[in-house]
Parts: sequence; structure tokens; C-alpha cells
Amino acid sequence: MPSETRQPSFVLVRPQMAQNIGSAARAMWNFGLDRMRLVSPRDGWPNADSVAMASGAGRLLDEAVLSEDVAGAVGDCDLVFATTARSRGLTKPVYSPEEAMRVAAERIAQGGKVAVMFGPERAGLENADVAQANALISVPVNPEFPSLNLAQCVLLCSYEWRRASGAVEARRDELAGAAWASAIEVEKLAEHYEERLEEAGFFFPEHKAPAMKLTLRNLWSRMPFTSEDVRTLHGVMRQMVRWKERG
Amino acid sequence: MPSETRQPSFVLVRPQMAQNIGSAARAMWNFGLDRMRLVSPRDGWPNADSVAMASGAGRLLDEAVLSEDVAGAVGDCDLVFATTARSRGLTKPVYSPEEAMRVAAERIAQGGKVAVMFGPERAGLENADVAQANALISVPVNPEFPSLNLAQCVLLCSYEWRRASGAVEARRDELAGAAWASAIEVEKLAEHYEERLEEAGFFFPEHKAPAMKLTLRNLWSRMPFTSEDVRTLHGVMRQMVRWKERG
Repeated sequence: MPSETRQPSFVLVRPQMAQNIGSAARAMWNFGLDRMRLVSPRDGWPNADSVAMASGAGRLLDEAVLSEDVAGAVGDCDLVFATTARSRGLTKPVYSPEEAMRVAAERIAQGGKVAVMFGPERAGLENADVAQANALISVPVNPEFPSLNLAQCVLLCSYEWRRASGAVEARRDELAGAAWASAIEVEKLAEHYEERLEEAGFFFPEHKAPAMKLTLRNLWSRMPFTSEDVRTLHGVMRQMVRWKERG
Repeated sequence: MPSETRQPSFVLVRPQMAQNIGSAARAMWNFGLDRMRLVSPRDGWPNADSVAMASGAGRLLDEAVLSEDVAGAVGDCDLVFATTARSRGLTKPVYSPEEAMRVAAERIAQGGKVAVMFGPERAGLENADVAQANALISVPVNPEFPSLNLAQCVLLCSYEWRRASGAVEARRDELAGAAWASAIEVEKLAEHYEERLEEAGFFFPEHKAPAMKLTLRNLWSRMPFTSEDVRTLHGVMRQMVRWKERG
């Protein structure tokens, strides 16, 4: 059963290598997409080579909707994108993958149905296919080396779908059970080090001592310490003192 | 010769399959990255299987910097990321690929040196490798199927580098030599259709005619017509009239 999340259908148009259909299924499912449509796969359908390559994402192949032509595959959709690596001489809006998937998510949130077409490996979509799309998607590749394969193109669009539709956190902090150190903990650490270093004769020559102390205070306070880090650093200093006292 | 663009180094740590080193080189160069570093590739270096797979991006392999350990590979860098698929029990910031490459671009613009580490295929980076990084990168995959391979992970980070460092246009319009129709051209088209449709008895019943005309005017004006589209539609109407007059 396809997942219940509302999402675009990805349409592989006349794919050539059966393995690539399997790789595309994996790339889709890596990012939570599971509606595949196929237009006339060259090597027939179903296909054992596709299944072998899809390991873990085989369900997408079982559920893939097969059509004879593009019109049949995208007829129920009200927003159709065509991925393309080159200019087509057709008047169309051209979106980045990010912007396209943002627009797709918007349309789907409004109750629309969206399809994204991917062309055959060697030559890409024909102009007759592209003419049935509302807009193009062009991946911003290095113009000196624009050789993305089918599964890579599917991967990037799937990735952008997940970014557009979900909550991808830009940054979080993995704290491994620890908590951030409070300012007072850091202050006490600074004092501990300052006292011991004073005894040890670190702040020398004397006229530079205030500046050296300030530098050290500032160093501690700009570190993203956890409470555990602070305990560790207290231990470091205590050990140095013990070692010294042992003589 | 590496390109002159300032950019992060991508570091493959103990890669297992030689082919994957070639695929990673292709993925990097697809998005304009060409500084690869290698830590102890399992199958030795240089490697003919890597070269065969890198077709078109072989220069990256020739220029790859080989190190024995992670410390040697990233020692000159002041911001080191480690890509990882799982939680590490280590206190670290965890970035999305997008945010990581944004931070990398910022650091590089300030004159810094950035490295991104990728682990061996099967097990990923060891905690001892991860501990040498300043931050983690986690690709936001489907938790039910988080099976990205090495080259795919390199591809997504390379893609995000290009997005972060360059001007990726969200949307442009491919105009195929045409220009957008001016308001006056659209107005004349609307008039042409309105006149002919009036003759043809389209606006019926009469009390509904003003609303029907308004609907039609609005239809024309909300279409993203080029001048060529407008000429085509004039031709359509003229032909219908000729056809009618032929009797």
C-alpha cells in the first residue's frame, strides 16, 4: 500500500536500463516518496533486474502505474514538471529543483495533483513530452560536466521534495545525555583555573597578568561547554595539582 | 590543475570499493568541486577501477591527496564536518547539508579552509574519526529507509555546495527567441475574439453577454502569452472565419 502522505508522482518516461528503475525507486523511498509511474519501459514490465536493484524499495515497483504514453501517465495531474538538462526552444518557466518542489508542495496542499517526469537515460525527454508539461526543472550542474544519471536526478528531486514538504532542521545539537553548562558553572571553572595558574606562576610578567586573565576568561566563555565538559576540565586541573603535589 | 575557485575539500575516509571513489569524483565534479582527499583506500591507490568509473572526472583522482589517517587529511582545515547517518553519543552540532554548506561558504569567504569527511561504505565513520570533526552533517532521509550510498551522500553535499556558493536561480523563463506579449497586444487579441464571437452569436443570452465578455477578457489577461502566442491565436480566429466564409 502506498503511504498516505500526499505527494507528487514521479514518472519515468521510456526508461532504458531496468536496473535504473530499481535505483530510482530506492532514491525516491530514501526521501519518503512512493508513487512511481512508468511510461513504456524499454525492457518490459515487470522486470526482475529492476526488482534486484530496488532492494528495500521493491514495493514501489509492485505498485508502479504503467502507461503507454505520457498523456496517459500524467492526465490526472494539474501541475506537471519535466526534468531536462538542456534548453528546449520551447517557451516554459524553468525552475530549480528546490523552487519546483516548493511550488509542488504548495499545489498539493491546495488539493492539486503533481507529476514530475524524467526522461530516458541517453537522450532525455523528447520535445513532444516536454510540451505536455507546465514547467521545466533544471538541476544547476557544472556546465563543464553536466552528466547526471537518471537515479541521481530522481535523488535530487526527491531530496528537495522532502526539504519542501517536511521540517528539515538546519541545525540541532546532539547532547549525548548532557546539558549545556550554565554561566555560573563556567565562571567557577574560570576561577578554579585562575587560582591554580596563579599559584603555578602562569601570569607572568605581572604587568601582563590582567590582560592574560581576561584572555583566559574570554576563552572559557566562548566555548560551547556542557556541564560534563566543565567537570572534565575541573578534573584535568585537579589532576595536575595532585601530580605536582606528589613531587 | 585544480580549479581556482575556493572550495571545501571532500575527504573519503577508508573507502572500500574502488568504483565508489570514481563515482564520488563524478558527483563532485557535476557540481564544480575538484578537491578530493583520500584516507587509506582499502584497495590501494592509484586504482584502475576508480579511474574507469570516474570517466570525465578522472582529473580529480590524479590530483587527489592521499593520507594515512584522518589527522593527516584534515590537519590544515579550520572547519571540519563529518557526514553521518546515525547518532553518535558525542556532543556535537548536527547540520543539514544545506546549512552546513552555507556555513562552509561563509567560512571560506572569510579565508578559512573547510573539509567534509565521508566514511567507509559499510559502517560509516568511526567515533574516533567523528571526534576530529567540529560538526556533523546528517542528510534528512526517510527513517524507514535511510540507505544512502557513498556517492549519493557526496552528490547531495556537492549539490548543496553549489547552491550555497553560487547563484542558483529559483525560476527563470525560457523564451525560445520570443518576447512576452505587451498589454496592448493582449488587448487587441481580446478585441479581435470579442468582435468575431459577437458576430458568431457566442454571447448569448444577451443579459449574460457583459459577464461572458468579462470572463473572456480576464482569461486572456491571466495567460502568460508571448507575442508569438498572440499571433498564433489571431491566426486561429482568422482561419475559423475563413472556414465559415467558405460556406
